[in-house]
Amino acid sequence: AVQEKDPYAMRGRWREWLTPDCALCLEIGCGKGKFISEMALKHPEINYIAMDLFEDVLVLAMEKAVSQDVGNVKFFVGNAAKLEEYFSFGEIERIYLNFSDPWKKKKQAKRRLTHKNFLNIYKKIIKNGNKICFKTDNKSLFEFSLNSFAEENYKMSNITLDLHNSDFEDNVMTEYEEKFSSMGNPICKMIISR
Amino acid sequence: AVQEKDPYAMRGRWREWLTPDCALCLEIGCGKGKFISEMALKHPEINYIAMDLFEDVLVLAMEKAVSQDVGNVKFFVGNAAKLEEYFSFGEIERIYLNFSDPWKKKKQAKRRLTHKNFLNIYKKIIKNGNKICFKTDNKSLFEFSLNSFAEENYKMSNITLDLHNSDFEDNVMTEYEEKFSSMGNPICKMIISR
Repeated sequence: AVQEKDPYAMRGRWREWLTPDCALCLEIGCGKGKFISEMALKHPEINYIAMDLFEDVLVLAMEKAVSQDVGNVKFFVGNAAKLEEYFSFGEIERIYLNFSDPWKKKKQAKRRLTHKNFLNIYKKIIKNGNKICFKTDNKSLFEFSLNSFAEENYKMSNITLDLHNSDFEDNVMTEYEEKFSSMGNPICKMIISR
Repeated sequence: AVQEKDPYAMRGRWREWLTPDCALCLEIGCGKGKFISEMALKHPEINYIAMDLFEDVLVLAMEKAVSQDVGNVKFFVGNAAKLEEYFSFGEIERIYLNFSDPWKKKKQAKRRLTHKNFLNIYKKIIKNGNKICFKTDNKSLFEFSLNSFAEENYKMSNITLDLHNSDFEDNVMTEYEEKFSSMGNPICKMIISR
């Protein structure tokens, strides 16, 4: 099966289910799953896990993975606030945050996936020196995130305010990114390490 | 006189010329000088120094200061590459970089005032814990600067990608900023400390 119904039970054991000696990368909020399936096909030597809050989109993501015969990716319905219950300390090599909900209102700031409360959770599941890759077309969310990462003393690199006109190669697009970048919206991206 | 013809001779002695016990802030590339005169009028308790590469614009800046009877600002023609020859270690409290030349071509990167070579010079004239305030409407320069500051482990804060629609109050505009922000160009700003 490509879906894990009980992610709590997999804590510390995800690699056993996939390929034990390979890196384990996680996309939080995979949506319809184009990104994670393409990444998995491109990097068969890496284990991928994709989670989303909503089962309806996760089903589409899983159908896509199955139809493309992607073997190195697993899915589950999950909440980023509970990451420590799904993963053990340092179990994850890299986190992808793609076009996360901007939660525009000020009082919703704590729900943004780059809020310091989430950063403190990510710290616990990713290994020292490992990375978070973040991209968005929402300028306000990017600005919020720059300040959040800087305040929490994360090391930022490869910051771009216009990914599709930058030197960055090897970009794998999400469904949302294809649509909005084709409309001329610049995509912002950065890599953060701890 | 508002102009110092021999800035080398003033090294370590700028405060004596102005008000000895007051902070000393420097604008690099003051252009026509609206910013520095307004800042000086707004903060009579602070000493300001403004430099520019070009004497023709510096003359306009000085005329503005004189006509507004600004007493706490001095000007000189100078080159940012020579800052250590004009100022002693830790002599400056704060540096302002406003709408610096973006030097668009890649091979011109070393001329950008936020290039790491300049950051290493600034380090020598500003005191530990003190700040550099940087604003620009040039997205590529802002992106370059974010990466440059991050690489050199400067602490960034108050990062905004649209200053005029942000919560930041008390913004003093340059001539250039008035013109370009009124045309709808967003202004990016951040504060960097070491």
